[in-house]
Amino acid sequence: MTAQARLDRHTEWVGFMQARDIAVHVPTVTMEDRVAKAVGVMAISRLPGLIVVDALSRPKWVLPGSQVLRLAVPEAYQEDPALVRTIDEAHADRFWTELGDRTVGDCVPRSPSRPVTVHSDATLLEVAALMARQHSPLVAVVDDSGALVGAITLDRLITSLAVFGPEE
Amino acid sequence: MTAQARLDRHTEWVGFMQARDIAVHVPTVTMEDRVAKAVGVMAISRLPGLIVVDALSRPKWVLPGSQVLRLAVPEAYQEDPALVRTIDEAHADRFWTELGDRTVGDCVPRSPSRPVTVHSDATLLEVAALMARQHSPLVAVVDDSGALVGAITLDRLITSLAVFGPEE
Repeated sequence: MTAQARLDRHTEWVGFMQARDIAVHVPTVTMEDRVAKAVGVMAISRLPGLIVVDALSRPKWVLPGSQVLRLAVPEAYQEDPALVRTIDEAHADRFWTELGDRTVGDCVPRSPSRPVTVHSDATLLEVAALMARQHSPLVAVVDDSGALVGAITLDRLITSLAVFGPEE
Repeated sequence: MTAQARLDRHTEWVGFMQARDIAVHVPTVTMEDRVAKAVGVMAISRLPGLIVVDALSRPKWVLPGSQVLRLAVPEAYQEDPALVRTIDEAHADRFWTELGDRTVGDCVPRSPSRPVTVHSDATLLEVAALMARQHSPLVAVVDDSGALVGAITLDRLITSLAVFGPEE
């Protein structure tokens, strides 16, 4: 393929590809799920974050993985590196065991936040700009009713764009 | 295994595991590398971010993936969702082609920042707290001289912790 043909094809492709075309099904959690389960869902599915949905499958939170971890690490440890270094073996286990029955709803910030979502007809450039702006490696894709129809991971977005990206 | 035996084992394990024990080798980039290459390195190695090193292999930046994307998305698009929606097919290709020869050094913030690093003898709890605090799914592990010896991804950290985490 000539460089021009390649560029034409890329132009056409990026222009017509929409979020729904690259969105994939991902497991979600609810506010009632335990944090330990949420971390497990993320790990098992190797997701870069988690989508927290309500009873109508509408995304309430889209949490980057580092913030899912934030749910699991006691707050005092997060804010004080010196304190973390003092934790000896006898107490380090608290990191997980203190989680106990705490739910996702117990741990997310109280203040409402607009979840990182795009409509299913958004362009890939819109998805990329949203990820960059919101510092989120995960975007929820929703339909007209606001219900979740899939998700786009950073990995998938980059792979999709790279297929027709500039040659090295 | 009884719950107590399990807890004892977990306690011992978390207490003795250090960053060096779970760090893995990852490809890195330098300030002189082109952004297009940096995005490619991240995608091919399926990394959640990138470590930018200097000539002595010391981490200068540890960029979460969404911020690597930020290097690649023109700033005007990031700040103005309405503008992004106006981009038609004929211009959407600019997203990649405008990258041209821009290097990582051209795109990272000018202000110096402490890279997200831990010493190789840090505990896993320290690593978790750092990821949560810095919103970073990637941590660089360094030796006494500050040189990179490996990296820990969020995925790897969670998997390592989960092995002996609380039962579901």
